[in-house]
Amino acid sequence: MTGEIEQDELNEQFLRILQEDDVLSAREFLNQQNISDVAVLIDEFPEYEAKIISNMSIHRASSVFKILDLSSQKSIIQSLPPYKTAELLNELPADDRTSFLEELPSEVVKELIRLLDPEERKITLALLGYPEGSVGRLMTPDYIAVQVDWTMSEVLDHIREEGKHSETIDVIYVVNDKGEFVDDIRIREILLSPPDREIGDAIDNRFITLKVTDDQEVANQIFKMNNRVALPVVDDKNILLGIVTIDDVLWVANEEFSEDMQKMGGTEALNEPYLEIPLMKLFKKRAIWLIVLFLGEMLTATAMGYFEDEIAKAVVLALFVPLIISSGGNSGSQASTLIIQAMAVGEVTLSDWWRVLRREILSGLMLGSILGLIGFFRIVAWNSIFHTYGDHTALIGITVGVSLVGVVLWGTITGSMLPIALKKLGADPATSSAPFVATLVDVTGLLIYFSMAFIFMKDILS
Amino acid sequence: MTGEIEQDELNEQFLRILQEDDVLSAREFLNQQNISDVAVLIDEFPEYEAKIISNMSIHRASSVFKILDLSSQKSIIQSLPPYKTAELLNELPADDRTSFLEELPSEVVKELIRLLDPEERKITLALLGYPEGSVGRLMTPDYIAVQVDWTMSEVLDHIREEGKHSETIDVIYVVNDKGEFVDDIRIREILLSPPDREIGDAIDNRFITLKVTDDQEVANQIFKMNNRVALPVVDDKNILLGIVTIDDVLWVANEEFSEDMQKMGGTEALNEPYLEIPLMKLFKKRAIWLIVLFLGEMLTATAMGYFEDEIAKAVVLALFVPLIISSGGNSGSQASTLIIQAMAVGEVTLSDWWRVLRREILSGLMLGSILGLIGFFRIVAWNSIFHTYGDHTALIGITVGVSLVGVVLWGTITGSMLPIALKKLGADPATSSAPFVATLVDVTGLLIYFSMAFIFMKDILS
Repeated sequence: MTGEIEQDELNEQFLRILQEDDVLSAREFLNQQNISDVAVLIDEFPEYEAKIISNMSIHRASSVFKILDLSSQKSIIQSLPPYKTAELLNELPADDRTSFLEELPSEVVKELIRLLDPEERKITLALLGYPEGSVGRLMTPDYIAVQVDWTMSEVLDHIREEGKHSETIDVIYVVNDKGEFVDDIRIREILLSPPDREIGDAIDNRFITLKVTDDQEVANQIFKMNNRVALPVVDDKNILLGIVTIDDVLWVANEEFSEDMQKMGGTEALNEPYLEIPLMKLFKKRAIWLIVLFLGEMLTATAMGYFEDEIAKAVVLALFVPLIISSGGNSGSQASTLIIQAMAVGEVTLSDWWRVLRREILSGLMLGSILGLIGFFRIVAWNSIFHTYGDHTALIGITVGVSLVGVVLWGTITGSMLPIALKKLGADPATSSAPFVATLVDVTGLLIYFSMAFIFMKDILS
Repeated sequence: MTGEIEQDELNEQFLRILQEDDVLSAREFLNQQNISDVAVLIDEFPEYEAKIISNMSIHRASSVFKILDLSSQKSIIQSLPPYKTAELLNELPADDRTSFLEELPSEVVKELIRLLDPEERKITLALLGYPEGSVGRLMTPDYIAVQVDWTMSEVLDHIREEGKHSETIDVIYVVNDKGEFVDDIRIREILLSPPDREIGDAIDNRFITLKVTDDQEVANQIFKMNNRVALPVVDDKNILLGIVTIDDVLWVANEEFSEDMQKMGGTEALNEPYLEIPLMKLFKKRAIWLIVLFLGEMLTATAMGYFEDEIAKAVVLALFVPLIISSGGNSGSQASTLIIQAMAVGEVTLSDWWRVLRREILSGLMLGSILGLIGFFRIVAWNSIFHTYGDHTALIGITVGVSLVGVVLWGTITGSMLPIALKKLGADPATSSAPFVATLVDVTGLLIYFSMAFIFMKDILS
């Protein structure tokens, strides 16, 4: 990868060429760069983005365009002359075009689709017809399909003719005369076979297909497990509709995880890079959850209100409130993160809930006991040094210790079951963010703590 | 993807064939399945795992082996006879072999390496010599390299000879007579060129190389930005050492994100599926962080201890402690997650710290003001209905409201700067988990709250 120093050189060279205003040398310069380097240039000099795109061959321009951030893509489309936009959109691979269009407001989409050639327009409308997040939206119709009774040399001739327009020729798709999918075959098998062999004799009937309505997460799992660079997509009647390539799946995996993380941190998914999202939009996405959590957390004030008299009688009780509730929150965050993550990679499914619960009850008891013991000894030791907690040190120690076992146990159970419950209800498990779980556990943690106080410190509190 | 019903049928069929104890039909059955289906069978029937692997062609067995969980891989290696283990390990692609071996204790690795053929042994030792997490560990030496002065037909002959052993023939690597990397070229360009053209004339000198010591995260970013199925790996002297294929990068991306998530939830990275990791190991990985956080959180009890007299004078102050500290914790978790995620995908780098800080100060002020206003009005409204907070309602409301601004601002600043500071110090930013940030913010939150109380409720507290 280009280091930072090389990047600086590149930037300087680019500025020099631009200042000379010599279209030919600008073209030559841009033509020599990797598409990722051009993308970096556009990031660095957004004021020249339209100029950069216009001065590249349309094929390379579309390769650059598809890896840009959504915000750069939008502003380029706005600043290009309409005929250039049309050229660019028509050149863009169908799958990348879909994923760009699906981020735009529908009026704009309509306008842009009108710029497309009839053939590309048909394809785009079809792809946009599949539900968001489905395999259909990732699909490209630019693949090479051959008939099952063709010979290898016919297949190679066909590849030489059609290969230029195809997204990949690494895998060739075999269909029958009804367009039904028969098998896929790697180009290496074709190259290594005698030229007069029929393709139907070379296929091994071991194939994996994606359903056009499958979730994109499913596609990620299947690619991970199957070592393929592209997979065929079929409909219910096994008609071959398109293919999905692994590089698109890598994008989806990265985005999917980003969204999960953001949700787990208690924000709505940003869908834009952190430094580029407008501050007010960022504020709104964060404020919503923060306010919801705040309203929930207000119940702690109400709960504490019920115990105001007890606190007045033994102020020392108040000192351990933050310790107790944060321990519940921490153990709950741990448990929920573990389960969300395990569900995201398919290691835990809904039907495992009982196994998860059993593990978490045991873990919660063990973790709670450790913290409880530490808490108890801290209080006793502290008092023997500083004499802070007065005559009732042992009782307070026991109250805090036992409460910690209960609170941590409750935290792990809530944290682990909440993502499963959310999934069961059809919601995204990642919504059960660390802050959400912590808030849920805080109120109950207070109730557990003060109940223990009633039991162990009855005489002092009455 | 095979649905659940089909999976049940497959399982039944498999059990029937096994009970017949007919080796030939077992082989035939296994031979007809996709490798991912065989992997599922091994998951379902671990008692037959060695039998399943033994009854497949060694090539297919290695394809199944490499997608299994580490725990299944280990137990298969333990139960196979040594000659079969040797066969399997020799057949395994070098990159997958490295990633299996790097998870094992070094005594076992030594023993297994002794089973390898001299050639494979040399390769494996070389790959294991690269640092963990580096591109070298992902590399395979099974690629096709051609000399820059060969003609297309010489290249095609070479591919037909060597193609069987290569991990991919989709991309061919061009080197000079010193073994230095010159360019890569896609097989389609070769197929579409006249047979007597020299390969040196067909290359475009636009290539991207990975350095063997690059971080695997870097490889992920480069693949994402460059639409390639495989990339060449070179050393400092530009000697071609191997290639990395995109499917391995997809695995790395998935694992990397899993680890990040687990760390962010306040657990050490599990490195094993949640349901398979032994309970005691799971307990240890969780207990460490939970205890560290607990010890940190004990400072809250100390801090509260300083204000014991003030709480005794105005017990009402204690009621809002959970609300105050949790608001700081929640806004801190939000901020840290956003920044960790943005750093993980490369949107935010160390040099952006000032831009991040500016955004977070503004966001923190806005979020804090919203929560502060809600808090103030809640207290005033509650009192006008329930008369809970006595004569000093307005003062308490102001104390809580202003504290919330301070605490939320402090939470966002700490949460956003901590991951950047950790990265600067060479640690993993994901370590600044939600619970870690919350704990840091809790103590300071208390100090802010009671300082505000001293300012606004001076008369009552003195």
